[in-house]
Amino acid sequence: MSKFCKIFRIIFVVHLLTDVSLTVRYDPNWKSLDSRPLPDWYDDAKLGIFIHWGVFSVPSFSSEWFWYDWKQRGLPGIIDFMQKNYPPDFTYPDFAPEFKAEFYSPIEWASLFKQAGAKYVVLTSKHHEGFTNWPSKYSFNWNANDTGPNRDLVGDLADAVRDYSLKFGLYHSMFEWFNPLYKSDAANGFKTQNFVKSKTMPELYEIVQKYKPEVVWSDGDGDAPAEYWTSQEFLAWLYNDSPVKDTVVVNDRWGKNISCHHGGFFTCADRYNPGKLQTHKWENAMTIDHYSWGYRRNAPLSNYLTIEELLKTFITTVSCGGNMLMNVGPTSYGRIVPIMEERLKQMGEWLGVNGEAIYGTRPWSHQNDTVSKDVWYTKKKSATGYTVYAILLQWPKAGTLTLGAPQTTTATVVSLLGYQGNFNWSKGPIGGIEIKFPLIGWNMMPCKWAWVLKLDGISN
Amino acid sequence: MSKFCKIFRIIFVVHLLTDVSLTVRYDPNWKSLDSRPLPDWYDDAKLGIFIHWGVFSVPSFSSEWFWYDWKQRGLPGIIDFMQKNYPPDFTYPDFAPEFKAEFYSPIEWASLFKQAGAKYVVLTSKHHEGFTNWPSKYSFNWNANDTGPNRDLVGDLADAVRDYSLKFGLYHSMFEWFNPLYKSDAANGFKTQNFVKSKTMPELYEIVQKYKPEVVWSDGDGDAPAEYWTSQEFLAWLYNDSPVKDTVVVNDRWGKNISCHHGGFFTCADRYNPGKLQTHKWENAMTIDHYSWGYRRNAPLSNYLTIEELLKTFITTVSCGGNMLMNVGPTSYGRIVPIMEERLKQMGEWLGVNGEAIYGTRPWSHQNDTVSKDVWYTKKKSATGYTVYAILLQWPKAGTLTLGAPQTTTATVVSLLGYQGNFNWSKGPIGGIEIKFPLIGWNMMPCKWAWVLKLDGISN
Amino acid sequence: MSKFCKIFRIIFVVHLLTDVSLTVRYDPNWKSLDSRPLPDWYDDAKLGIFIHWGVFSVPSFSSEWFWYDWKQRGLPGIIDFMQKNYPPDFTYPDFAPEFKAEFYSPIEWASLFKQAGAKYVVLTSKHHEGFTNWPSKYSFNWNANDTGPNRDLVGDLADAVRDYSLKFGLYHSMFEWFNPLYKSDAANGFKTQNFVKSKTMPELYEIVQKYKPEVVWSDGDGDAPAEYWTSQEFLAWLYNDSPVKDTVVVNDRWGKNISCHHGGFFTCADRYNPGKLQTHKWENAMTIDHYSWGYRRNAPLSNYLTIEELLKTFITTVSCGGNMLMNVGPTSYGRIVPIMEERLKQMGEWLGVNGEAIYGTRPWSHQNDTVSKDVWYTKKKSATGYTVYAILLQWPKAGTLTLGAPQTTTATVVSLLGYQGNFNWSKGPIGGIEIKFPLIGWNMMPCKWAWVLKLDGISN
Amino acid sequence: MSKFCKIFRIIFVVHLLTDVSLTVRYDPNWKSLDSRPLPDWYDDAKLGIFIHWGVFSVPSFSSEWFWYDWKQRGLPGIIDFMQKNYPPDFTYPDFAPEFKAEFYSPIEWASLFKQAGAKYVVLTSKHHEGFTNWPSKYSFNWNANDTGPNRDLVGDLADAVRDYSLKFGLYHSMFEWFNPLYKSDAANGFKTQNFVKSKTMPELYEIVQKYKPEVVWSDGDGDAPAEYWTSQEFLAWLYNDSPVKDTVVVNDRWGKNISCHHGGFFTCADRYNPGKLQTHKWENAMTIDHYSWGYRRNAPLSNYLTIEELLKTFITTVSCGGNMLMNVGPTSYGRIVPIMEERLKQMGEWLGVNGEAIYGTRPWSHQNDTVSKDVWYTKKKSATGYTVYAILLQWPKAGTLTLGAPQTTTATVVSLLGYQGNFNWSKGPIGGIEIKFPLIGWNMMPCKWAWVLKLDGISN
Repeated sequence: MSKFCKIFRIIFVVHLLTDVSLTVRYDPNWKSLDSRPLPDWYDDAKLGIFIHWGVFSVPSFSSEWFWYDWKQRGLPGIIDFMQKNYPPDFTYPDFAPEFKAEFYSPIEWASLFKQAGAKYVVLTSKHHEGFTNWPSKYSFNWNANDTGPNRDLVGDLADAVRDYSLKFGLYHSMFEWFNPLYKSDAANGFKTQNFVKSKTMPELYEIVQKYKPEVVWSDGDGDAPAEYWTSQEFLAWLYNDSPVKDTVVVNDRWGKNISCHHGGFFTCADRYNPGKLQTHKWENAMTIDHYSWGYRRNAPLSNYLTIEELLKTFITTVSCGGNMLMNVGPTSYGRIVPIMEERLKQMGEWLGVNGEAIYGTRPWSHQNDTVSKDVWYTKKKSATGYTVYAILLQWPKAGTLTLGAPQTTTATVVSLLGYQGNFNWSKGPIGGIEIKFPLIGWNMMPCKWAWVLKLDGISN
Repeated sequence: MSKFCKIFRIIFVVHLLTDVSLTVRYDPNWKSLDSRPLPDWYDDAKLGIFIHWGVFSVPSFSSEWFWYDWKQRGLPGIIDFMQKNYPPDFTYPDFAPEFKAEFYSPIEWASLFKQAGAKYVVLTSKHHEGFTNWPSKYSFNWNANDTGPNRDLVGDLADAVRDYSLKFGLYHSMFEWFNPLYKSDAANGFKTQNFVKSKTMPELYEIVQKYKPEVVWSDGDGDAPAEYWTSQEFLAWLYNDSPVKDTVVVNDRWGKNISCHHGGFFTCADRYNPGKLQTHKWENAMTIDHYSWGYRRNAPLSNYLTIEELLKTFITTVSCGGNMLMNVGPTSYGRIVPIMEERLKQMGEWLGVNGEAIYGTRPWSHQNDTVSKDVWYTKKKSATGYTVYAILLQWPKAGTLTLGAPQTTTATVVSLLGYQGNFNWSKGPIGGIEIKFPLIGWNMMPCKWAWVLKLDGISN
Repeated sequence: MSKFCKIFRIIFVVHLLTDVSLTVRYDPNWKSLDSRPLPDWYDDAKLGIFIHWGVFSVPSFSSEWFWYDWKQRGLPGIIDFMQKNYPPDFTYPDFAPEFKAEFYSPIEWASLFKQAGAKYVVLTSKHHEGFTNWPSKYSFNWNANDTGPNRDLVGDLADAVRDYSLKFGLYHSMFEWFNPLYKSDAANGFKTQNFVKSKTMPELYEIVQKYKPEVVWSDGDGDAPAEYWTSQEFLAWLYNDSPVKDTVVVNDRWGKNISCHHGGFFTCADRYNPGKLQTHKWENAMTIDHYSWGYRRNAPLSNYLTIEELLKTFITTVSCGGNMLMNVGPTSYGRIVPIMEERLKQMGEWLGVNGEAIYGTRPWSHQNDTVSKDVWYTKKKSATGYTVYAILLQWPKAGTLTLGAPQTTTATVVSLLGYQGNFNWSKGPIGGIEIKFPLIGWNMMPCKWAWVLKLDGISN
Repeated sequence: MSKFCKIFRIIFVVHLLTDVSLTVRYDPNWKSLDSRPLPDWYDDAKLGIFIHWGVFSVPSFSSEWFWYDWKQRGLPGIIDFMQKNYPPDFTYPDFAPEFKAEFYSPIEWASLFKQAGAKYVVLTSKHHEGFTNWPSKYSFNWNANDTGPNRDLVGDLADAVRDYSLKFGLYHSMFEWFNPLYKSDAANGFKTQNFVKSKTMPELYEIVQKYKPEVVWSDGDGDAPAEYWTSQEFLAWLYNDSPVKDTVVVNDRWGKNISCHHGGFFTCADRYNPGKLQTHKWENAMTIDHYSWGYRRNAPLSNYLTIEELLKTFITTVSCGGNMLMNVGPTSYGRIVPIMEERLKQMGEWLGVNGEAIYGTRPWSHQNDTVSKDVWYTKKKSATGYTVYAILLQWPKAGTLTLGAPQTTTATVVSLLGYQGNFNWSKGPIGGIEIKFPLIGWNMMPCKWAWVLKLDGISN
């Protein structure tokens, strides 16, 4: 070996070592997988949009569990609906050709989600019905390209969402209620894995490689353990070798008893909102329609959350360290109906004024105030330390608001986001702070539904 | 003749005379018909709901003029929509079986209209497409009972609306775009009346006798004179002999050049809102969806009027002596979508506080203020004379509002509807009044979108 | 009177006389109408094709009376069919958009009818369902141009049929089972005529003027007298002033108790085949499908008449002075199914050999033979008097066939149509004729299903 | 061990040895598999019915290759058909819900096949479209139970066919035109087997175990070798261990270049009819509709084979050692249309008279005659040796028929099946036989389309 070669060899070895030292590889076990730090973007994002869309959007009745509730649970309301409106031999798959998505405009959707202040979007690539919204290689003729929309619903949204600088994620149901391969594995006590190997995993790998989602939102363990699903192997691949290994975040629904214990962020239960600080990053996946993730044609206004309810859920979630994944259910013809558009825009309107108290924040030492009800906190690093944000779900009835949690200093400055000037304050009798609210005319209010006091120079 | 008989005869004659003296009969000419006083209930009602529902609710695209705009005007957007979504031979009548109304609940509708503060409801019994929403004897297989909903949509709503103590009215289009009998009469310069005699008039008489509507809202003169339509004969019968002769009100669209000149209340043009006092009772028929009377599946939020816009339209209409007939377009499956439900309930919420300034009022000497913009007036008889209501579309930016129109007296009292206590005021420098607005906390505001000052003891 | 006037008067009278001598005018009463001679073409034609096509071709089940048997008679088979295959609210008019006629080729139809040996074609312009197969001015949206085929089915067939030198006729139902105007007239004991005046008669005049049918085949008196229908007025116009006054033939179904008594040819009952000579020209309207005029998707082979049955019906009909109107029911997609095509072509094959014994013939003195069973006669003028045709439905079992009816002469010559050479014969013991049949090889038989002996030189 | 036990042990061992010696096991290679004797029933059966039924029965246009010819080959006729009759986004799977089979009566079908004289029935369990007519575990929502008929079409027919003592077989396509797993394996040069392992083989094993077909009629090798398909392993299992191991017959389409070389009976090509004796048992799979296996709604009569053509094909096939598998294409609504029913019954009528010359026969030394055209032979063991059957496609034109092939003896007896008495004959001048045909009256002919001379006492 020449001297010249030796030098190269050394450089090469060093380079290799550097690489090894930079790239941690994960093993397919929870201990190793759980050790992966959650990519930063996710905790900063706070608000995502969830989209439930599928063949269930055609009957658009009861909920996205329509098929199961009809055939397995036999819900009288659904049985009655079918008897009144369809021939006796009509089957659930017979709905698929009516899923037309003729008004589907991914650009309009993405623009709306951007306006709502969301930072990421998670679409059901496939719900428990098994219908894939992309042209899956493993779901022949039971996908949106082969029947119904005749279009790759997933790919088209991925492009649009990224055009609006939002992160794109995919929901994916591991089990499928009525897939006979799944049912047969289940009947075998999950000792066989025909379903996992020919359907679940091929599809999961396919969507990651094809659409490079930055959220993989798994669901539907079907009471089977993660070992049945080979979830750990998938996650190890996802973290080590997938095209999104550096940025992807995942949730926790990877097998029976795994949720709330392992994986990426925790979702625990639908509409999970614990009301206190969690030790692990979590997400509150919830719906604008109280009762359904899929669009319901017959939902009255009262079934939709008001903007006040949405904000309360959002603010309490963020204060306790969660993100909120707010669900919309588009129609079978591809529209997000105006009442949902209104709620989304109201969120965006609010965030336009108050986003500073949300994006990039972290939970404070207190989540809500010790004295005044309906006041929730976030904090954010500032030039001089931390800024604390007190978010008021109610406008104070009197001219003075007493907060028990913040410890004032001489440098304490209080202001209202969206309003010019500072508020007077004094130290509370037993600590805390008493803030004098000026009389603000109706026209001068910075927003209509929740207000943020910005507290600088707080000592705790 | 016996004495006994004579007495009877006298009584009978007297009775006849009494009847004659009580019952004015109208002749089939405008002079006589126009002399009929409008029944009181109508002017007091102020707010009605208009409903456009028909086969056009199935494509639910572009507008209720879908058929005409497709086949007659050839609107590119509609031609494109049809080419993309239907086979080439698909016809407009082919849509009818898809008009299913499966979620139609007249009781829910009526309840909603009641909550909106409306006092009457006007349904399209038949639009220009010719499809009758009732089982017409003259529209075989082109009506809602024979195809599509398989139900008498009109009768079911009439019952529900009356259960809620609202007045029930019917819109009726005299002409039908594509009815060959109409087209043939038109081609004959309206010298023949085959269409009128076999379709228009039999149907008008039929709906009056069957559903006893208290509003007959005629439309669609098709450029034909009232003489062609025999409108005057119909109105004479309606006023003299129909089951609703004492209570019915009609509009003015009874023939070419008749609108705005003859009939009952004047509608003049769609969304008619002249902005000044009219000498004749009128109605502003307008839509919650800016661009369409029929439901459009693809209408975005921005196409719906905001509650602020609705209230501005309503208040200016009432101040100038009009009623507002606010249109909703239900879906083909029978729902009034949540965004419309929200607008209706917002109207009702506002009227719950401020209805006193609306119902039963009459225009004041001034319609809007001479000094302050966006202040509109109504008046109402009170124990001591008249109360004047000044309706503010904007909350005053400063603490003092100057109104130029009201002339104060020593007895003048100013208050805000929905707010306790009176406001201080002083006489303006050159007449009028200066009203001091107290600082009202956010939580104490009586409503969110328009506010009513009640002025008692005003001298003009 | 001046001399000048006299001359005019004479000219006028002469002119009138000329007219009278050329043009007989008919009055609207049966006596006058019945006096019109039937145009010659009809009696010579012998075979026509009847076509039943309409919305009933969509369910294509039970029969063309589907709607009535479902809703009025409540046939369990139909009720069951609907319950099993359609939603509960499905109505009969909802079938119309499925009437697509996508394979309809009038040229192919006409060519097939020509090959069948038919001389005229009668299409249902409108059956009792009221659906018009032409774009009627009086049946808005309940016709083949406005919904379903989106095409003038009648006009297109008229052109094609005439291109093949066949006569074109139209069936027309006067009543419509469920037309509310008809039902209302019926409820009034046919004292009112709203239906006749706005529907039946306008349509009848319309189709005559538009399509110039040479057969007007009326049906469906709905138990109402001809006076209700104004049939006599229509016929007077048809005979005096219509565009087909010289050539048109009509049938006899023009009112209650009229059939078999008045009008043009008599049809009396469906599948009328009296088996003996009639004094009035008549027609046997019958079906290839034993049980239905409209196409039935579920008809098995056994429900179709065999060619032997068809020929027997045809031959007995012609022998007794009738025409046969053989019905086919096309599918909703516009095809005459192969089994019907086969029957039609078998008819044509037979007529290709034996048409001489059919077309242009008249009944003989005997209709069938006095000695041999299944032998039927026709006759035709020949150069030397009359030729008599003895049509054998069965091939004689022995070598000699004895006929009792023909009286021989020395000039008598016997031959078999389609076979070369004459047959030996001898006079029967008690008159009649004994015909010696040569042994004809299987391959030399002129046809397969009925054979015609041509008897020349017969004295009776 | 007692002496008693020893004896038992010996018996048991002997028994075991016997079993082993009786049961040949086959190895998964062609040499071994080809050594299996074809079960006797098949060669005796001669006539089977083939049924092509699937989603292609819905458009029912062009052929069962509709999907491929539309999307892959782009046949203008199909593209035009789709453009004229369907919306642009309509896909092939969108047809599935219209496959309703509402009139499907397996009992009627089986009865008809029995009447046709068939001995076995082969149904497409799945054609190249991939749609399974049974509720496959491996074809979720693309099968007749999950969509469309909502019924196990295969199982119901299996039961009915066996009720009529016919053998039941299943056609099965190995490849699926558009299955992405197949396409991906193909793109990989068939080095991968994802499709075979997750779809083809699981389904083949499933249908054998579930329906126990006695014919497994494989098709669609998709240009892939048998090794890709693992056909040999499947056949070894089928012959060794399947529930039908003793009775099943299979065809030869098990991989590229396998057809006509390996497997059970040879089918070689569609409508294979070599016209001379084959050394290996073969089958002529052919269609009543000249151009299509699937039903075509627009097929005219001329596209259906006549009974003469069918019999000619059948007789030449049997004479040369083949079976005929005659195909019918049912409609999407579950009917075998009357023209096909007629052909089937004509076959049955002919076999009722002449079945003796067909069933259980074997090819003779000559397949057709050396002197007379259109005479084909079969033979069958008789008490005294062999009976030879000479089947005449044409009735002899003269009274004498000369056959060159049969060598007469003094014991030779000639008769006509279905006709009483023997025919005179004499030895031909250079061998062979001259048969005198009596003159048989039209009514005495035993059948109408092909006639069988039974020759006993023939020396060759």
